[in-house]
Order: sequence, then structure tokens, then C-alpha cells
Amino acid sequence: MEKKIAVLPGDGIGPEVVAAAIRVLKAVGKRFKHDFEIAYAAIGGAAIDQFNTPLPEETIEICKQSDAILLGAVGGPKWDHNPPELRPEKGLLQIRKTFDLFANLRPVKSFPSLLESSPLKKEVADNVDLLIVRELTGGIYFGEKKRTEDGASDLCIYSRKEIERIVDNAFELAKLRRGKLCSVDKANVLETSRLWREIVDEKKAQYPEVEVEHNLVDSVAMKLITNPSHYDVIVTDNMFGDILSDEASVITGSLGVLPSASIRGDSFGLYEPVHGSAPEIAGLGIANPAATILSVAMMLQYSFGMKEEAAEIERAVNAVFEDGYFTRDLATDKEKALTTDEWTDKVIAEIDT
Amino acid sequence: MEKKIAVLPGDGIGPEVVAAAIRVLKAVGKRFKHDFEIAYAAIGGAAIDQFNTPLPEETIEICKQSDAILLGAVGGPKWDHNPPELRPEKGLLQIRKTFDLFANLRPVKSFPSLLESSPLKKEVADNVDLLIVRELTGGIYFGEKKRTEDGASDLCIYSRKEIERIVDNAFELAKLRRGKLCSVDKANVLETSRLWREIVDEKKAQYPEVEVEHNLVDSVAMKLITNPSHYDVIVTDNMFGDILSDEASVITGSLGVLPSASIRGDSFGLYEPVHGSAPEIAGLGIANPAATILSVAMMLQYSFGMKEEAAEIERAVNAVFEDGYFTRDLATDKEKALTTDEWTDKVIAEIDT
Ligand SMILES: CC(C)[C@H](C(=O)O)[C@@H](O)C(=O)O
Ligand SMILES: CC(C)[C@H](C(=O)O)[C@@H](O)C(=O)O
Repeated sequence: MEKKIAVLPGDGIGPEVVAAAIRVLKAVGKRFKHDFEIAYAAIGGAAIDQFNTPLPEETIEICKQSDAILLGAVGGPKWDHNPPELRPEKGLLQIRKTFDLFANLRPVKSFPSLLESSPLKKEVADNVDLLIVRELTGGIYFGEKKRTEDGASDLCIYSRKEIERIVDNAFELAKLRRGKLCSVDKANVLETSRLWREIVDEKKAQYPEVEVEHNLVDSVAMKLITNPSHYDVIVTDNMFGDILSDEASVITGSLGVLPSASIRGDSFGLYEPVHGSAPEIAGLGIANPAATILSVAMMLQYSFGMKEEAAEIERAVNAVFEDGYFTRDLATDKEKALTTDEWTDKVIAEIDT
Repeated sequence: MEKKIAVLPGDGIGPEVVAAAIRVLKAVGKRFKHDFEIAYAAIGGAAIDQFNTPLPEETIEICKQSDAILLGAVGGPKWDHNPPELRPEKGLLQIRKTFDLFANLRPVKSFPSLLESSPLKKEVADNVDLLIVRELTGGIYFGEKKRTEDGASDLCIYSRKEIERIVDNAFELAKLRRGKLCSVDKANVLETSRLWREIVDEKKAQYPEVEVEHNLVDSVAMKLITNPSHYDVIVTDNMFGDILSDEASVITGSLGVLPSASIRGDSFGLYEPVHGSAPEIAGLGIANPAATILSVAMMLQYSFGMKEEAAEIERAVNAVFEDGYFTRDLATDKEKALTTDEWTDKVIAEIDT
């Protein structure tokens, strides 16, 4: 197969982890005889420096001509005091909206060999395998913002359609997994949440194989830590999803290995690691590329339907961990930590075998 | 001293834990020679059943004539399908608003004897001593709610004044503690957050002894679990505060012992345990009264200025834990668990000595 991928390295460690992931992608291409064509483009702080905007038109064009997008990370202290329109994150918000990427998928799965790094007790963090489905293009993120002399406001607004499509998406994903869906809202306070809950209840009948529960966001914020293995698929709005998916990312002690996908119901999608641009270690060649490599696996699966290839990357990453190879963030013995490139070599060696 | 207290037992285990806390209050009154006059009133589901409203006028009157309010818990499956206006939680929202209780204080402190029950590793949960200051009468909770044929919306709105008073409150509290304040917002997305951040920065100069940091809500949702002992005072808006304070309540493994205060800048306040009404164990006499007893300690300190008396309750509770006495929720050997009354007797025996 021939696929075009827009690659947006971004800022901080973005370029390093993206370079590593592209090497893995090429190894997969070689082994499975696919042709991945890559086009680089600017986003975030790098784009602000070069084009004075966090998401240049040229980048949008390149993405439009591609089958999927791979993104590194955006942001850094250099741009922290820019006005809102010239902030690196704005590029992220704009690319989601421009391509209507309304569903953000954040899987969290424990790697037995990494549980040492978890802040949770082993018996709590073990056997976690959950997927947070976050609505990504609506809600309080994109509602009207106002500033008056006396105060400020943000409007959290959802149309029926926006809720219906993300809920459908989550039901479909739950069907492919363990068939459990937890819908998270604040229906005892918010009108958008009450509508959300109604829509989930309306849809239930269409997915008889999926078991549904409703839960309040404050209660889920607790249970994610006390009993994370309770969850299969969690679906929630943009703001709650932002908070809960970052909270969930610490469960398994492996923030550096968590991938994400932002999709829209067809095969197009944007794939990026969950971690940020980590400016403090940028350029040192020690960043953990696992999250970006696993984001490539999600791309192969969700955008290109290459299930076997995706599974091969996951197997390789897991094998390298099982063999006791770690980058600095995860190594218990820091002396033995591998660099970004050394660790990537191990993954490629697995795939080449 | 003579003080009047409005006591609102509410639903589920509310009446049981409140009864236990009142016994402790009386023991303190006897030992320190204070006269606590108590007036009972209805709230929540109990009030709906009796008066067809979750916050009867009579209850408001009784509270107005008191120096402080002690509340048990509200809610239960019986009222879960009531319309919004006839839900037990509505009573809670209304009492906060009626008495302008704009600051919710939620201390989280590890009891060494309870760390076993924490989902976090001992070294992570140890030495946690933080205070979340949540804005309680503004934001998306009380902004305009709309429902149209096509969708729904909630307005998150804050006036300068509303933010200023909660921020001042948090600065004052930080001064009395370790002098560290973390202000939590989502300033990279929300206008209310940008205003919030500006106000915190304006106020900084008035409190030179307090060290301030700004942090994004998603990032704090992570760090509360990976490094909770980093925090001293956290100040945030109503919605973020709801989520983060519940998340923080699991750190120390002692949800059943966490108290809270809702205050407004003068000596009046409402005190209640953090836990809910736990309908599944209501009436069994096994609920943990520690959180409500410690809420009484907060009342003595914040509303009545009785520092020594408050400290005595805290000492007594701690001593009973150190002696290895626990209610069912915390006992590792459930056979040896004490009932609500037995455990309360131990606390009273400590105070009487
Ligand atoms: C950078 C920020 C705007 C963004 C968000 O809140 O969506 C980030 O936290 C994320 O989750 O991708
Ligand atoms: C019951 C509910 C409305 C309430 C809130 O969200 O404020 C509760 O969760 C709390 O934190 O006291």
C-alpha cells in the first residue's frame, strides 16, 4: 500500500521523538512492503518563529493532501508570554477544528515491566486497560469567550449532533473491546451534561451488546485512582476529557509511552504522544520515543487498517521493555539508560527479525 | 462561650455520623465549659419527603439564627430521578448560595496509621498536607443554563470581585501555613482563567511572604497523584475545584476521615464531611464518623476561634487511629472493626481524660 503522511515535529523533544518514530515506520514499511511517503510541515512555536502563526496555511495544505498526520509536541517557555493567538497550543486547537477531529482516543494500558514507575500500588495499577474517548472540537473550548470591565465568561455549548457523533463513536469502540461504556458528566449541575446523558440513554438501544453506566466527573476522578481496572471505555466532553485523560495517564507509571489519536469517523486522523514538548530535555537525545512510536501504531491501525503491522510495533515495544531496556525516564538504574536512538534501534531490531 | 449550631443531618448515613459528631461536640463543651445550643433542621431528600423542597424556608431561618451549620450528607437512589429542582443536591447548592459561602476548604493530610488504605505507594502518599480552596458560588455552576431543540449550554461566568475575594482568602490561608500557593486554571483556553491568572498576579505584591505558581488543571490532575506532597494551598474555580478536591481525597486512603468547611470571610460557616450519603450502608451503624467529627473541629477553629478545642479533637481522633481502632471502611481485619458508636466512644474517652 502507498500512504501519505504529514509529519509535524513541533517543539522541544518533538523533532527527536518524531524522527525515531519515522525510523520505526520505515522499518515496518520495509518488512510489510508498504510505501510511506512523508511530507514535513511546521506547527506550534517552530511555526510562529518561521511564519508568525502557529498553524500556517502551507501546513494545512500538506495535511489535506495526506492520509494521516503525525505530530510531535508543541510549546515551550520561549512562547509562554505570547498573546493567545500566537501561542503554540493555538496551533493544536486550530488543527483539530480545521480537520473536524472530534474524537480524541487515549488508551491507557499497563505494561507489567513498567509498573515500578507507577505512583499507585502494584495491585491497583495492574491489569488496567482503558480507553478515554474525549470530545475534542466542542464544549467550553470553542464556545464564545467574553471579557468585560467587570469580569469574563466562557460558554460551554453542545449541539445534539456533536454529542451524538462522539457517543456513537464510543459505543462502536466499546463493542470492539470489552463492551463496557462509562459516560462521564456533571448532570446534577450542568444542562449540557443532562443533554449528554439523555443522548447516551437514547443510543443505548442501538448497542444492546454494550453495558452502559453514567457517572459524575468528580466521582470518576476518584475511582480512576482507587479502581482503574473497573473501566473499559470512558466517554466524556472536551473539558472533562482533558482533565481525566491526563489524570489517567499517570496510573500506569508510563506517561512516556502513551499514544493518542484524534479522529473524525473516516480514515483520516492525527496521531501524537500524550506527553508534552519537555523543553528541559530537548536536544539531549534522551527523550523516550515510545509514545510517538505507539502513536504510529495507532495510525497504522485506525487510518490505514493495517492491524498486523500495528500489532507488530506494539509487540516490539513490549519486547524491548521486557528485555529490560529503558530510556532515562523509566530506567531504575539511570547509568544503564539508553538514548532515544539506542532504544529505537532495539525496537527496529525486533521488527527486522 | 455560648454558640448556636444548626444541624442538618440529611440523608443516608448523614444522621448517624452527625449524631456521633454531636456527642463529641458535647464532650468538648463539657471539658472546655462551652455551651453549644443545637437546632435540627431538614435538608436534601429528607426535606423533599417532608416539605417538598430540598431546602425549606424553615431550615434557612434556623441557619440564619445560628453561628454555624453542621451538615451530614444528602442524596440517595430514592430521589435520583426527580426533576433538577427536586433533587437533594439542589439543597446543597442553594444553601451555599443563600449564605454566600464562597470558599470551600478541603484539607487533605495523611494519617500515618491509614496509609495502608491508600491506592498510592506509601512513599508517595506520605507527608501530604495540602489544602484545596475551591470557589463555591460562581462559575459554570451558577451561570445561565439553556436548552434549545438543537442543543444545550452552560455559561461559566466570573466577576472580578468574585475572583478577588477567593484569591485573597487563599493567600491569607497560605500565609498561615507553609506559604506556598498554587493557582489552578486553564488559561491556555479559557477567558475566565486568563482573568483569574491576572488577578492572582495583581494580588501577589500584597502577599510578599507567599510563593505563587500557576498551573494548568490537566497538569495538576497528574501531579496531585505523582507528587502530592509538592502542594501546600491550591486555589481554583468551582468546577475545577470540584474535580480536583475529589481526586485529592483519595491520596491518603482516608476519604472517610476528610472534613470540609464552606466559609464567607466572616465567622459564619458550613461544615460537612467530604464523603457522600452512602445509602448502601445507611442504618447499619457502621459508618465512619471521623470526617464529621473533624468537620466539627474545623467549625470550632474557623467559626468559633476555639483553636485549643479543635486541636484536642484532632489529637483524639489521631490517638484512636494510632491505637489501632478503625471502623469497617478502614479496618484491615474486618472482624475487629468497631461500629460508629464504639469508635465515637473511644474518641470521647480520649477527650474526657
Ligand atoms: C494544549 C491544550 C490546549 C490541550 C488541550 O487542553 O486540549 C492539551 O492539554 C491536550 O490535552 O491536548
Ligand atoms: C452534589 C454536587 C452538586 C456537589 C458539587 O459539585 O458541588 C458535590 O459534588 C460537592 O462537591 O459538594
